[in-house]
Amino acid sequence: MLKVPEHQVAGHLAIDGKLGPLVDDSGRFYKPLQGDGRGNKELAFYESFSSDTRVPDHIRKYFPVCYGSQLLEASNGSGLLHHLVLQDIVSSHRNPSIMDVKIGSRTWYPEASDNYIQKCLEKDRRTTTVSLGFRIAGLQLYGGKESGYWRPGRKEVQSFTVYNVRSILRRFVSSNSSIGNENSDCSFAPSIYGGSAGILEQLLELKAWFEDQTIYHFHSCSLLILFDKESVSKGSASVPEIKLIDFAHVVEGKGVIDHNFLGGLCSLIKFVSEVLSDSKESSIKDCVESEKPGICTDNGNCQ
Amino acid sequence: MLKVPEHQVAGHLAIDGKLGPLVDDSGRFYKPLQGDGRGNKELAFYESFSSDTRVPDHIRKYFPVCYGSQLLEASNGSGLLHHLVLQDIVSSHRNPSIMDVKIGSRTWYPEASDNYIQKCLEKDRRTTTVSLGFRIAGLQLYGGKESGYWRPGRKEVQSFTVYNVRSILRRFVSSNSSIGNENSDCSFAPSIYGGSAGILEQLLELKAWFEDQTIYHFHSCSLLILFDKESVSKGSASVPEIKLIDFAHVVEGKGVIDHNFLGGLCSLIKFVSEVLSDSKESSIKDCVESEKPGICTDNGNCQ
Repeated sequence: MLKVPEHQVAGHLAIDGKLGPLVDDSGRFYKPLQGDGRGNKELAFYESFSSDTRVPDHIRKYFPVCYGSQLLEASNGSGLLHHLVLQDIVSSHRNPSIMDVKIGSRTWYPEASDNYIQKCLEKDRRTTTVSLGFRIAGLQLYGGKESGYWRPGRKEVQSFTVYNVRSILRRFVSSNSSIGNENSDCSFAPSIYGGSAGILEQLLELKAWFEDQTIYHFHSCSLLILFDKESVSKGSASVPEIKLIDFAHVVEGKGVIDHNFLGGLCSLIKFVSEVLSDSKESSIKDCVESEKPGICTDNGNCQ
Repeated sequence: MLKVPEHQVAGHLAIDGKLGPLVDDSGRFYKPLQGDGRGNKELAFYESFSSDTRVPDHIRKYFPVCYGSQLLEASNGSGLLHHLVLQDIVSSHRNPSIMDVKIGSRTWYPEASDNYIQKCLEKDRRTTTVSLGFRIAGLQLYGGKESGYWRPGRKEVQSFTVYNVRSILRRFVSSNSSIGNENSDCSFAPSIYGGSAGILEQLLELKAWFEDQTIYHFHSCSLLILFDKESVSKGSASVPEIKLIDFAHVVEGKGVIDHNFLGGLCSLIKFVSEVLSDSKESSIKDCVESEKPGICTDNGNCQ
């Protein structure tokens, strides 16, 4: 019944005899508890988080549901291993476009060892983590039945520059997002990034919480952004989703806000806002240029 | 005519034959151009900033006016040296309480040398920079005619913990702020931190700009917070002031927000808000406890 997740865009994959997460058909995601205490730290976070009444419901929905832990045959054949049992976020989407964005201008935390800090710092400087306050850790773009998915390899993702990130945030919501296409039309930006249930509004809701909450500091944690391009194309009401994942390095906030996460989140918000306002401007321009008696609506669509 | 500034709380002092800034009686502050290019970088920043039409007026007021540079006798007797000529922010205050808060969870920037980065990182970890997103770099509290100023030494300031910072942000707006007094009354919080022209509103105005501006990244830059306790005690309309200073490490934003500064600023805002709301709560409590027919006003004063 258990199988390798079809749409995993970052982290260790359960292929070629390696250890990785598994999914079942009932919408559950089984994540092997990582060694060196990290797995137990993530389990402890989920336990603390689910019973913490200070977390409001409108924030809780940004976290996967956790169903505890379970002993399962590990994907690498090493025998029984404890797995975190989580909601499989992707299972409700048919052909999801997914972006895994690791938030923060540092992935290390003061309590960590010098070795760990230097290792993280080196990677944070090599990627866009330091410069942007976030880095793309993985992604897949659905291009349609013919072209299928574009899923860049780990090395390519790790070499993304600020320029690449900006370009990918545009391609993510474009109808012409196949490989190598630099002239993204951003035609899905108004419906995916914009609108009252869009990605931007969800990011702003999270931001408001991070300006205030001093319970947790989320180091090396990712925002998963996902939506179904086909249902958007067909005009059906698919709501784009955001989920926070990967909590092996969460520490107590001790009365201080998570300024590292918040700063990176604000940087991502600025990038997403820019794609959205560019797409509105170009829609208005198209209306004017085509000399149609078009009305440019608030969400940038020409009617 | 030139003299050593009376109220300098951080940086190199022009005493004992050392190089430091000087002031005159007309309200100007002369800052020697630091060697190794830093002085020229700061001058270049002021020149670029003063002519940049993208900076709105309501933000420009948070920066000292710059009157260019001037050759002057250096305070260390080394002869003529170029000095930045700036507005002396402190000159309009009689007995100013001042706090110099270095903003950001890192003081280094990606373009810097490995050596410089390691040196900064070490200090950022040793102080509250990494944990809080800011550190107090210097301060003086005016305690009244008898007790005069409390101005902790450089070593003491550098050893401030999160606990100390929280306590100092309270003492800064307390009437009983003399040395060693831990039970700060925060009686000036409503008039200094609160109100429409108070510190919190000014910080929020800056924050809104930092959420949007992608022109500059302000590394190792300080917020100077200052006010006149005596004029507050006497009920005269002294407006607390905020100024950004120290721009030797400003680099171009290149289309990315200054998420490092913004995160730290939000952390400071949270601390200031907490002092303010604590002071309101304790005022209300005082009113109730004293069983006076008191009315607790919005700014937390009992009438």
